Amino acid sequence: MNEAKHITISLDPAAPRKAALSALLEQIMAAYSVSDDEGPLTDAVERFLSGFPHLTVRRHGDTVVASTSLGRERRVILAGHLDTVPVIDNFPPRWLEPGDPLIRPEIAREHPSERVMWGRGATDMKPADAVMLYLAATLTAPRVDLTYVFYDHEEVAAEQNGLRKVAESHPDWIRGDFAIIGEPTSCGIEGGCNGTIRFDVVTHGVAAHSARAWMGENAIHKAADILNRLNAYEPADVPVDGLTYREGLNATLISGGKGTNVIPDECRVHVNYRFAPDKTLAEAKALMMGADAGAELGNGEHVATGGVFEGYGIEMRDESPAARPGMDAPFARRLAALVRERTGREPMAKLGWTDVARFSQLGVPAVNLGAGDPLLAHKHDEQMPESQLELLAGILVDALA
Amino acid sequence: MNEAKHITISLDPAAPRKAALSALLEQIMAAYSVSDDEGPLTDAVERFLSGFPHLTVRRHGDTVVASTSLGRERRVILAGHLDTVPVIDNFPPRWLEPGDPLIRPEIAREHPSERVMWGRGATDMKPADAVMLYLAATLTAPRVDLTYVFYDHEEVAAEQNGLRKVAESHPDWIRGDFAIIGEPTSCGIEGGCNGTIRFDVVTHGVAAHSARAWMGENAIHKAADILNRLNAYEPADVPVDGLTYREGLNATLISGGKGTNVIPDECRVHVNYRFAPDKTLAEAKALMMGADAGAELGNGEHVATGGVFEGYGIEMRDESPAARPGMDAPFARRLAALVRERTGREPMAKLGWTDVARFSQLGVPAVNLGAGDPLLAHKHDEQMPESQLELLAGILVDALA
Repeated sequence: MNEAKHITISLDPAAPRKAALSALLEQIMAAYSVSDDEGPLTDAVERFLSGFPHLTVRRHGDTVVASTSLGRERRVILAGHLDTVPVIDNFPPRWLEPGDPLIRPEIAREHPSERVMWGRGATDMKPADAVMLYLAATLTAPRVDLTYVFYDHEEVAAEQNGLRKVAESHPDWIRGDFAIIGEPTSCGIEGGCNGTIRFDVVTHGVAAHSARAWMGENAIHKAADILNRLNAYEPADVPVDGLTYREGLNATLISGGKGTNVIPDECRVHVNYRFAPDKTLAEAKALMMGADAGAELGNGEHVATGGVFEGYGIEMRDESPAARPGMDAPFARRLAALVRERTGREPMAKLGWTDVARFSQLGVPAVNLGAGDPLLAHKHDEQMPESQLELLAGILVDALA
Repeated sequence: MNEAKHITISLDPAAPRKAALSALLEQIMAAYSVSDDEGPLTDAVERFLSGFPHLTVRRHGDTVVASTSLGRERRVILAGHLDTVPVIDNFPPRWLEPGDPLIRPEIAREHPSERVMWGRGATDMKPADAVMLYLAATLTAPRVDLTYVFYDHEEVAAEQNGLRKVAESHPDWIRGDFAIIGEPTSCGIEGGCNGTIRFDVVTHGVAAHSARAWMGENAIHKAADILNRLNAYEPADVPVDGLTYREGLNATLISGGKGTNVIPDECRVHVNYRFAPDKTLAEAKALMMGADAGAELGNGEHVATGGVFEGYGIEMRDESPAARPGMDAPFARRLAALVRERTGREPMAKLGWTDVARFSQLGVPAVNLGAGDPLLAHKHDEQMPESQLELLAGILVDALA
């Protein structure tokens, strides 16, 4: 897919906002940009933004950062990732006309006479990208300075994340007083996010022929206790700054054994702990493996000295901190009031991990606010009713212009 | 490995028995014959046996059957498989001279001044093949008629087994009153064998993003109960016809999950039940999944209606019946007496499944009697002290000549 055709993004200055937004969405949806293949779309975004004299455009890897420099007292960051999860017969995308059987029933019911954008990225998160491109092009004199971040590799392991790389290499590019990430929220505000850690819990045994099982030690049988502990664990609902975060502790993968007639000498249970923003990463890890287990990303297996998996081998696989909701910031209150007025929705806790947490680590309060239903992200039939574009753009223009 | 060089088996009629046996072993050990690649060795065995006018030689696939037709009252079958498990840096084989550090300590201790054959197949089961080739060539007037079976695909799934194919296509080729299978027993007699069944025990769940685990149902967590049942199961020691069979019930493989951030919708525990010859295959299956579950090889998943795994999905993967020890047959008593005299060993129960069970199904009592330590079968450092050849040949010549 690397030989993607040349992509051009253009905006007709004479077009009404609704038409301009839809045209921008069409253009970026048509660009195949599964993680690792964002390059051509990034190039097009960079060229597009470089055409506006009110923006300073910088690039690091496949991430583009464009900023106004109006000397305003405050600066708001608008960030969206350009990559998507892999396609599954849902590329190229297209508009579904009203009545199309591919339109999900709940969308057809609520938006009976609307076109629906269908295909990979239709919620996660090209609609928000399209709105941000529109704002970047048209908000030449906003009430706050603005920084737009279009980044790569959000849908894969945290260490590849383009926003993370910019935060590490050029933290000055993304300084600000508040950040909005365009992850899909159906134009509601979702504040903060749960943190997540993933790790293998490992049992060891002794291999033997299964006809002489007593000469070995069965590592899969030993994993019963790990699964029993998972079943005994009761996930908590944790209130933080007025929003409620629902935690979760789950085995997502399990593997063990070397052959059908061999007593297995190892079993690995891959566990994902999603924890509320009342806990630091270190506190969350301590609850799983004790405070001094010593297991870090890339340093192999260490025995849990406490916590849920005390006594078992632990190998860290991924970790990302939680973020407290940024709802006490003044701009957040203003944004929340606008969202309440246009959608009737109150701010909610974000459950999945998003780059909100990355801004939180940089000391920038951040929320998610994007078009499209978050439950459709990564689905085969990812789709979004067209009016979400105008709704999101309206809220942001009124908050920023 | 299919381009194996042309293999020739020859026997110097003037050589003493010890030298002749060692020479035969060298020749067949040098032939690479991992399952699927037995062909060239089978060809050589067929050519070798066809040179003796007292033998009628037949072939089916890569299995060679050679018989005497002396009109004796009774017929004894001698069977050995020609294939080996895959090589792991243990091919080509070689003789280790006394003092070689590759000789295992227990063998060096018991056979201090002996050469040791080292390499793939050195116990399982080319020594017995060599002895049988020697008997085939030299026993021109045995006291019973003899049928030699050299067969393929013993070390892989039961449906590929060459002896099974001959039993199905040409049962008349392998009729007899008693059978000796040359699986390694250190020249002791091992009677009968445990049966074995393998099946997947399956749990089902509902996939969801692990950030919203409550929207799914975790199939790996459900497998806890399966592992708990395995841990609660106490394997029995079962006496049958005076020999004791040790049973075993083990998970040998486990797998589940689709991604690190996805609540798993399926988990499979691959279980191996080794059961004593007091049970038929149907009885063994009933103990695991109930008598009327309906799970058969190749017919997909069925819910266990009883037994250890009642309530779970079962998919049958492999099954082989047990065999009662054939030690009440008159020839078996004679053979047992000779073994007792030469080795001091009493007949024992065979634990692993062997083709003894296949003869048992054909109504032919059968035992295992072969050279080499069964605990070294399939090991990287498979090896056998040279004197085992002469010990085995002596017992068989005195029993048969």
